[in-house]
Amino acid sequence: MRKFAAEKSKKLLAHRKIFAAVLQNPTVSFNSSLSSAHSQNYLPHSSFLPRFLSSTAANPIAPSESMASDYSSTPVKIDSINPKVLECEYAVRGEIVNLAQKIQEELKVNPDSHPFDEIIYCNIGNPQSLGQQPITFFREVLALCDHPSILDRAETQGLFSADSIERAFQILDQIPGRATGAYSHSQGIKGLRDTICAGIEARDGFPADPNDIFLTDGASPAVHMMMQLLISSKNDGILCPIPQYPLYSASIALHGGSLVPYYLDEAMGWGMEVSELKNQLETARSKGINVRALVVINPGNPTGQVLAESNQQQIVDFCKKEGLVLLADEVYQENIYVPDKQFHSFKKVARSMGYGEKDISLVSFQSVSKGYYGECGKRGGYMEVTGFAPEIREQIYKVASVNLCSNISGQILASLVMNPPKVGDESYESYTAERDAILSSLARRAQTLEDALNGLEGVTCNRAEGAMYLFPRIQLPNKAIEAAKSVNTAPDAFYARRLLNATGVVVVPGSGFGQVPGTWHFRCTILPQEDRIPAIVTRLTEFHQAFMDEYRD
Amino acid sequence: MRKFAAEKSKKLLAHRKIFAAVLQNPTVSFNSSLSSAHSQNYLPHSSFLPRFLSSTAANPIAPSESMASDYSSTPVKIDSINPKVLECEYAVRGEIVNLAQKIQEELKVNPDSHPFDEIIYCNIGNPQSLGQQPITFFREVLALCDHPSILDRAETQGLFSADSIERAFQILDQIPGRATGAYSHSQGIKGLRDTICAGIEARDGFPADPNDIFLTDGASPAVHMMMQLLISSKNDGILCPIPQYPLYSASIALHGGSLVPYYLDEAMGWGMEVSELKNQLETARSKGINVRALVVINPGNPTGQVLAESNQQQIVDFCKKEGLVLLADEVYQENIYVPDKQFHSFKKVARSMGYGEKDISLVSFQSVSKGYYGECGKRGGYMEVTGFAPEIREQIYKVASVNLCSNISGQILASLVMNPPKVGDESYESYTAERDAILSSLARRAQTLEDALNGLEGVTCNRAEGAMYLFPRIQLPNKAIEAAKSVNTAPDAFYARRLLNATGVVVVPGSGFGQVPGTWHFRCTILPQEDRIPAIVTRLTEFHQAFMDEYRD
Repeated sequence: MRKFAAEKSKKLLAHRKIFAAVLQNPTVSFNSSLSSAHSQNYLPHSSFLPRFLSSTAANPIAPSESMASDYSSTPVKIDSINPKVLECEYAVRGEIVNLAQKIQEELKVNPDSHPFDEIIYCNIGNPQSLGQQPITFFREVLALCDHPSILDRAETQGLFSADSIERAFQILDQIPGRATGAYSHSQGIKGLRDTICAGIEARDGFPADPNDIFLTDGASPAVHMMMQLLISSKNDGILCPIPQYPLYSASIALHGGSLVPYYLDEAMGWGMEVSELKNQLETARSKGINVRALVVINPGNPTGQVLAESNQQQIVDFCKKEGLVLLADEVYQENIYVPDKQFHSFKKVARSMGYGEKDISLVSFQSVSKGYYGECGKRGGYMEVTGFAPEIREQIYKVASVNLCSNISGQILASLVMNPPKVGDESYESYTAERDAILSSLARRAQTLEDALNGLEGVTCNRAEGAMYLFPRIQLPNKAIEAAKSVNTAPDAFYARRLLNATGVVVVPGSGFGQVPGTWHFRCTILPQEDRIPAIVTRLTEFHQAFMDEYRD
Repeated sequence: MRKFAAEKSKKLLAHRKIFAAVLQNPTVSFNSSLSSAHSQNYLPHSSFLPRFLSSTAANPIAPSESMASDYSSTPVKIDSINPKVLECEYAVRGEIVNLAQKIQEELKVNPDSHPFDEIIYCNIGNPQSLGQQPITFFREVLALCDHPSILDRAETQGLFSADSIERAFQILDQIPGRATGAYSHSQGIKGLRDTICAGIEARDGFPADPNDIFLTDGASPAVHMMMQLLISSKNDGILCPIPQYPLYSASIALHGGSLVPYYLDEAMGWGMEVSELKNQLETARSKGINVRALVVINPGNPTGQVLAESNQQQIVDFCKKEGLVLLADEVYQENIYVPDKQFHSFKKVARSMGYGEKDISLVSFQSVSKGYYGECGKRGGYMEVTGFAPEIREQIYKVASVNLCSNISGQILASLVMNPPKVGDESYESYTAERDAILSSLARRAQTLEDALNGLEGVTCNRAEGAMYLFPRIQLPNKAIEAAKSVNTAPDAFYARRLLNATGVVVVPGSGFGQVPGTWHFRCTILPQEDRIPAIVTRLTEFHQAFMDEYRD
């Protein structure tokens, strides 16, 4: 069972309360004073985001002082560890999830201990944990590459599709010595990078260079690598959307930099305004912050918005003009659910504008964890690094080489998602059927949940155009806000905790992602299997009604 | 093709030359003034180690200034990146390896371009890249877990062993929803951690707790996590052996700490003297360094020594007395080649001495990349974290959770190597035959190479008791040292480069690992397949003879 930070760590974290107080200010209204509120909110650390989660008095299993003192003769104390580690938070696996795991254990011991049978994890984009099945072709190839000695056996042809066998042979031929158990080149196996580049070229219509590809264990290590490169101290700032995926705030905190927030405009469908970027950049610069990069998440996490190409062009121009590295989180590139939007990579947009390799520094992150494949456990991904001088690229390579290479199965899978079966391949029909079933079901689930949320009293929810999440806003009654304050908990965390205790549904409070001060949200995935969505809607609706009945002003 | 750091980065690294000068001092003799020489060598950064590699004038493909200036309009310059990244070096994939890759490309274009047919990579412990075959049972289980839908098919029984099918079912039952494509708990799948603990208990005879296990993508990320926790600034020091595996120096540099070197005694078979530990600790403390931890690599990398239990007891007592975390790199625990040595985990030693959970902070690192399995590409491993207060453990968990989890195939493999087939299992005989063939062949290869090296003029090589390496000392003639200096290259790097150019054999210069000033070494793996060892010995002997003939004083 996870335990939470003890009293000592609370004291060390007390400085956060300053920021918490700013963000908690309920007098700031969302629509009327957006820009002035934002310009006050430049924060020297990202740690403000999930501030309540680590210091709540409602902590259910905090160790007592006497427990902690049992370790008094061991050398590492909470006040002697790296303060950057203390400051880092990651709400997607934070306190609410810990509580859910505790309840899950209680349900195992006593199935009647809670008013529901099971925990439904809507906190994390982890499709296969909720029953999504892997794409057969991808798994066939992975299995064959894991155990190549069966490739020539007659039984194998009965068990595996012909094109999976052929693909496995192709991949093995790309690996020196066919050694799937060997460390690869630190950027990943060259032949797989070639395949990925062919996929990028087919997607974008512009060339891609395998020397630009760094294969990684999911997108997270790639983000860390770029933050490590760009951040020397608190004086280095990274522009991040608010709300944001908390990997970014966590990584900036771990590397000791400053998160420079820019706010997405909820009233405009979580739109991204260059004027807001400009304001926040200038505010940060006026405080001596050297802003190094701009993070854009498209399709958005947690917001689900898909950027229009014209908006992307503005962003590219902004980065070019202001000398910022554009860090483009494009891991949801295949998760788009509305006919009026489509994915354009930032590289395609930049190249279409005439900007070449020497004009703009752009890093695109991709992952096998998302899309229709949802292979989170395989930890595959890559970043495409363009527009960096050779001596900088050498430094990125060096950092990659310290960890030797990413896992080969993840590398292979990254090549497969960028080069799936084609027309004429034996698996093509079954592959497209599996893919389309997943994507169309996700679109229906997004719509059903969006409609349900918008039907709740005081709740508004933008369209889930893409990604795997909804990020509804809740107009919490003052009585609920007061009740949350009385237990030293953020109002949205208070709501999420009550939701969990009443229904078993796990969501992440908006404070884990950042939100306009005085507004409250939660992130909920669209990933429970489709036949379970009606029951979830019912539970959610009943809970919300009861909650409002209890706290309505 | 990899490019090396440009002129600008050389200037930024010029401060290293101060340390380089200290280490280069040829007046320090190894045997007579060991301790006094060492006490002068406290270094505020680990970056001294491969200092020559990053600043050699012999750089074959450094970009010209004009090339670099093509990127003048991009925002990231070599003097604007994190200086910790610049300082970090990792010689195992450093300059000599880059040169080897270049030669390999040249051989592809023109097989007659060099006086050999192929490159033999003895620079890295990467057994399967040199032809070692994976253990069949492990790969069977991995393949079945990758594609579980074939488990019930009749053909599968013809292709896979009965116990691999049974084991795959067992593992799938341990994974919630049988979802091998889902993110797991951030410490790894609980059932796999249970299995690993059973293996640790069987090995040590002391209990192991699955809550202490953090599964990781190889051992490297685990080492980084501990360094990140312990290092806040340059004032935090980590005691590391010299010579050391440069992951440690790289990780300390990346986290901005200070490497506090302690020297292994080459004359005593790379023995570890507590008096040396004490001297270096006191020297560091006198300079205001807060020494947080002691790294021990057992069996040793690059030295191959296996610590005696009595020596381990001294080390445990030293850490206990001095309040140091003991970071035990035990990834070569199954690689022991001499009958008079055996592996004892530091946890077993500490528990045998009566030290419990609350008495000593101890982290043990294990990897699937080493042992007889050598599954480097799978990126599996774990650390067992004992003797940390709950609030510290919570911080380690939090950092692990930011990256979600390690790859599931690597997790499964880590459980397999800690719980291989048992007597009575269908695979037991083939498994033991494969395992014993690899280990006995490695022992013969180690002995053959050790004998060959000791037969060379001016070369002495300690026993390879374990691990995968030999670390011979070369008494380089003064003329060779002068020739190296004239091209601004470390003498051992000069030797390694000449060896590569003459034979195609890639070794890593001792300066990449650290060595007593004025002594020169290289690290050579024992991993080329056994039938190729005689030819390697011949090439090496002929090269060395010619080299000495050229430079003999």
